[in-house]
Amino acid sequence: MSSSAAQQPTPQLFFQTINAYQRTESLKAAIELEVFTAIGEGNATPSDIAKRCSTSERGMRILCDYLCIMGFLAKQDQRYSLTPDAAMFLDKRSPAYLGGTTEFLCSPMLTDGSKNIAEAVRKGGTALPDEGTIGPENPVWVKFARAMGPMMAMPSQLIPKLVDPQANQKLKILDIAAGHGLFGIGFARNNPQAEIVALDWAPVLAVAKENARQAGLTDRYSTIEGSAFDVEFGSGYDLVLLTNFLHHFDPPTCETLLRKVRTALVEGGRAVTLEFVPNDDRVTPPDTATFSMMMLISTPAGDAYTFAELEKMFANAGFTRSTIQQLPPTIEQVVISER
Amino acid sequence: MSSSAAQQPTPQLFFQTINAYQRTESLKAAIELEVFTAIGEGNATPSDIAKRCSTSERGMRILCDYLCIMGFLAKQDQRYSLTPDAAMFLDKRSPAYLGGTTEFLCSPMLTDGSKNIAEAVRKGGTALPDEGTIGPENPVWVKFARAMGPMMAMPSQLIPKLVDPQANQKLKILDIAAGHGLFGIGFARNNPQAEIVALDWAPVLAVAKENARQAGLTDRYSTIEGSAFDVEFGSGYDLVLLTNFLHHFDPPTCETLLRKVRTALVEGGRAVTLEFVPNDDRVTPPDTATFSMMMLISTPAGDAYTFAELEKMFANAGFTRSTIQQLPPTIEQVVISER
Repeated sequence: MSSSAAQQPTPQLFFQTINAYQRTESLKAAIELEVFTAIGEGNATPSDIAKRCSTSERGMRILCDYLCIMGFLAKQDQRYSLTPDAAMFLDKRSPAYLGGTTEFLCSPMLTDGSKNIAEAVRKGGTALPDEGTIGPENPVWVKFARAMGPMMAMPSQLIPKLVDPQANQKLKILDIAAGHGLFGIGFARNNPQAEIVALDWAPVLAVAKENARQAGLTDRYSTIEGSAFDVEFGSGYDLVLLTNFLHHFDPPTCETLLRKVRTALVEGGRAVTLEFVPNDDRVTPPDTATFSMMMLISTPAGDAYTFAELEKMFANAGFTRSTIQQLPPTIEQVVISER
Repeated sequence: MSSSAAQQPTPQLFFQTINAYQRTESLKAAIELEVFTAIGEGNATPSDIAKRCSTSERGMRILCDYLCIMGFLAKQDQRYSLTPDAAMFLDKRSPAYLGGTTEFLCSPMLTDGSKNIAEAVRKGGTALPDEGTIGPENPVWVKFARAMGPMMAMPSQLIPKLVDPQANQKLKILDIAAGHGLFGIGFARNNPQAEIVALDWAPVLAVAKENARQAGLTDRYSTIEGSAFDVEFGSGYDLVLLTNFLHHFDPPTCETLLRKVRTALVEGGRAVTLEFVPNDDRVTPPDTATFSMMMLISTPAGDAYTFAELEKMFANAGFTRSTIQQLPPTIEQVVISER
């Protein structure tokens, strides 16, 4: 863009943004029609892709062009190919396939919350009934546990390497709000002496237990059914995992939980928090910082907390020291807090 | 981004795109709450903006951060300011305010069409009933005429300067599917000897006539009520305007209309077409090329035609020569076709 073009205001950003919902819907359609899988299999022309996906050629051409514009496909000489991201995450035959996460990410519980953002801004919290996603035993979390595993595969492998790099000592680990259970399972896979206690609502734990069984972990895997705010944790934990959990609650609620976490830890024990932690400006890094809007839409008082805010919550709960680490290539950060 | 980070596939684009609907909804909320106007008036902190917009401070802080990430606001020392685009197009006090266009751009007629893009791809045309937006006398076009004027203000001033730069000769102009009427009115404003005949469905023409009256053009402004495909155009036109019209129809339908247009033109007369004309690759320029998806969603067989396709339609209809010109800073192009 020339500098004079950049200086003149244009309605382009407005137009792009007001139509951004078509990006969501086009990507959903492409996943539903298995367009990425079809192209991964070698279909490259609108005609061949359309045949493989049982659609019109014209509709497929328009969809594939749109997918090019969004950056999921490349096009040369009227032939489409997958970008590396699409090949890795959107071809059904890839072990890192993420298409199933739309079951959760596009569930009405989340999308309905965004239908009235003005009201959420007025209120300062979700406009959904029954406390949004954090309502008691909200079934969306079973959907989450079933659908979001693939999205968590990468961080669940990275975190144990960061926190337990030697992997040569007995570790007792409490996995709070375990969901799919992959974080605890990741620690158990990393360290054959790690023993996991997974905590979540019973219907969600069914998914975690299934995943643990598939990982061959039954003898080192036990569970506590219920809400993390209500049940007894037990004690003697070397690590307590708080993965994508604190962002649902306000700081006083988090602090109450963290005090309980601290009591469950052994001397020298650590809390391991995975979170979307924006910089102090709250607008960078952009993908991390947008998570705050997701929490406004879907929870009464949750947020994407800065490291300073998390550090203060842990300090108020009695932890001596917190440190933060990036977890590339994910957009999340890990905070490790010492008892 | 470092080159190694760029090479490693990440789920970021997937995540951004699947959540893109939150961009639409957040911008709509900000317009509804008059956030841009509030900041334009000098409110800069979350607390002051929240007070002016009658919202919670927490919700406003999260919304404003999200607007920063999207590029509509800037933030420094916890104070927000408008970007030049937002000041020009989203502050209600600006004459170029575009907020009202959401009445059309986010009308259920358009957003409902995108709820089942997979079905539109299968069919090769809109999944909406009654031919989508081109159904007979579809009331969405009255909404269009009332809401979209501000978006068309800029092109409606630029095109007359391009087509009638001297503005010193009598011109009889047919404005097909006039809508808000601004294009014809632009020619009449540019040239005191220009006489406009505006054609559209009666309820839409009411808006065009109102705009013509406000521009003081009653004596040089007449109308033809009905569908461009059915009514008599009359004859002796120096110019026929086809602004944002051809994209709703398939090429044979366009050619039928263009033959009729040609007949209505004088020797040496010209058809002036404003369109979203992508390059031959159909994926650049991106903002222009995305318009094809809008047509798939909302019409049975419309498209964003390339210049080669438009040129062929005009040639098949008997026009001797077509030329294309960019219309910066808009994302549209003007095709001038000689009888």
